[in-house]
Amino acid sequence: MLKFTNRYRNSVLILILGSLLGACASSPATEPPDPLPSWNEGSSKQGIVEFVRDVTDSDSEHYVAPAERIAVFDNDGTLWAEKPVYAQLLFIFDRIRAMAPDHPAWQTTQPFQAVLEHDYETLKATSRDSLAHMMGIAVSGTTSEEFDAFVVDWIASARHPVSGQPYTSMVYQPMLELLDYLEANGFTTFIVSGGGISFMRPWTEAVYGIPPERVVGTSMELEYEVVDGKPIIHRKPALHFLNDKSGKPVSIERFIGRRPIMALGNSDGDYQMLEWTTAGEGRRLGMIVHHTDGTREWAYDRDSTTGRLDRGLDDAAAHGWLLIDMANEWNRVFPAEEPE
Amino acid sequence: MLKFTNRYRNSVLILILGSLLGACASSPATEPPDPLPSWNEGSSKQGIVEFVRDVTDSDSEHYVAPAERIAVFDNDGTLWAEKPVYAQLLFIFDRIRAMAPDHPAWQTTQPFQAVLEHDYETLKATSRDSLAHMMGIAVSGTTSEEFDAFVVDWIASARHPVSGQPYTSMVYQPMLELLDYLEANGFTTFIVSGGGISFMRPWTEAVYGIPPERVVGTSMELEYEVVDGKPIIHRKPALHFLNDKSGKPVSIERFIGRRPIMALGNSDGDYQMLEWTTAGEGRRLGMIVHHTDGTREWAYDRDSTTGRLDRGLDDAAAHGWLLIDMANEWNRVFPAEEPE
Repeated sequence: MLKFTNRYRNSVLILILGSLLGACASSPATEPPDPLPSWNEGSSKQGIVEFVRDVTDSDSEHYVAPAERIAVFDNDGTLWAEKPVYAQLLFIFDRIRAMAPDHPAWQTTQPFQAVLEHDYETLKATSRDSLAHMMGIAVSGTTSEEFDAFVVDWIASARHPVSGQPYTSMVYQPMLELLDYLEANGFTTFIVSGGGISFMRPWTEAVYGIPPERVVGTSMELEYEVVDGKPIIHRKPALHFLNDKSGKPVSIERFIGRRPIMALGNSDGDYQMLEWTTAGEGRRLGMIVHHTDGTREWAYDRDSTTGRLDRGLDDAAAHGWLLIDMANEWNRVFPAEEPE
Repeated sequence: MLKFTNRYRNSVLILILGSLLGACASSPATEPPDPLPSWNEGSSKQGIVEFVRDVTDSDSEHYVAPAERIAVFDNDGTLWAEKPVYAQLLFIFDRIRAMAPDHPAWQTTQPFQAVLEHDYETLKATSRDSLAHMMGIAVSGTTSEEFDAFVVDWIASARHPVSGQPYTSMVYQPMLELLDYLEANGFTTFIVSGGGISFMRPWTEAVYGIPPERVVGTSMELEYEVVDGKPIIHRKPALHFLNDKSGKPVSIERFIGRRPIMALGNSDGDYQMLEWTTAGEGRRLGMIVHHTDGTREWAYDRDSTTGRLDRGLDDAAAHGWLLIDMANEWNRVFPAEEPE
């Protein structure tokens, strides 16, 4: 057995003691790192930090119990890019092309033919009903599990038509930080999107840390059936619920069952979700991503067909909603960028 | 400054070291208390404990990541008593009586008149459609928040017609223990009930520890509207979704977005939920509460109109579903009882 002097033995014990104390207690000696480094100092960052401070401070009149700290986020244009065209629309076109061999008539039937021929001029001129009919076909006719597999394959292989990046790289770095910051402060975050619930769920957990059960979106009719002893859930070519505009507060009530205290959107499709959220009692926060950055992202609002923001821009101040000026308030838009 | 001998100083340091180690690591010196004390040793308790052990053991071939540990529970007859009549039906009768002053015609219109006169013979003979129509009226015509308040008031004041206890005392103690045991093992528990989603949510968190966003049930159509500048959600007198039988797997897919690994029910209304759950890949557990206890609770199965269990009783063994024999496997049914 090794022999130590008492002095040396004491030193060793004190070292161990010190490391154990370090392991047990957290050391607040240094300033904690900024949880929102991609947000420049400004009204949006200040609004978020003050809101979170108020609702988490048990001595504040604005304190909100953790269970009630519900924050809802739109997806397209709020958590990830929606330009030049919704990712889900490209997914639908790819599904139509993959299904085409089983549907020879599509070669000469619009709007299928236009999709197969990449004829976007014809698609632009196609009626809403006709497009909706095609979209219904593209996202139905399979089991729920087959559809999940299509989405998983697509999201892994598809590339954004402008950046050439995977779609999962087209998420906003400041929003990833905000989601983490809210979770760290006892919030429960939900996606409440006009996009398809089944198009989002297979990847939201890996990309945003938001599990399937906290994703609310547009949904198709489903049907349960046992085929050859095997239970399956069929996706039917009929819309069950369109989760846009007034549909958003309705599905918040139906899925979440509590009124959120914080809502983030970017278009007039989010107006009612913000309105419902911020009209509640007590401290509330509504925020709108304003796409002002034509260099790093896209600049659009009132005149855009995708993500039109018109009424929301007019009424934001009256409702106390904060506009997030992307060009000036975000020093980084996408995760791969260097901070400015 | 006090002076210690080296030997004494070493002893003190070692004592501190020991207590710190104790604080850092959990001490498994004593046998942990039984997490399921109201369950007698038997096939159900063994089935639960072995299932939880298998899916939480990272060295097991049956290991399931925490995010996928979804367990779904029916409510009426599975988590709380459904005899002699569903609690929600009594709530609906009470709502009709409370609304009656504004509807003088109900005094002479069936089935409203029967409710006002406590004429249960007439109600029993009333057609399903006529009852459903009345039920729709009883749970609509208000805002979502007004309805929450009605439920909160009712659940606080209503008494079970046989026991005279509050309904929230009519929950099953073994199930409260099971819910806690699953949560402690990284499961996420959901209620998937044929009952009204809005009738359950105001009290499930306090009673079961299950928050509103993890309650799935039958729902009415909702409508968002801004009235005099105040946003409200109207409850409409039209059924949105009947969450029973094949509706249960459909709403599991819609609300949760993952297939559960564990499902508990008690009637044929839960058959498809159990079927969908246990047909999945890997280790699964399906369980049926068999109401065999005519002394402490009620004894019923194939011939009961409320909570009929017929097909499930025939097929349980073939599916590998465990029947929970209430009379023999639960040493306590309700929280207020002394264990047997």
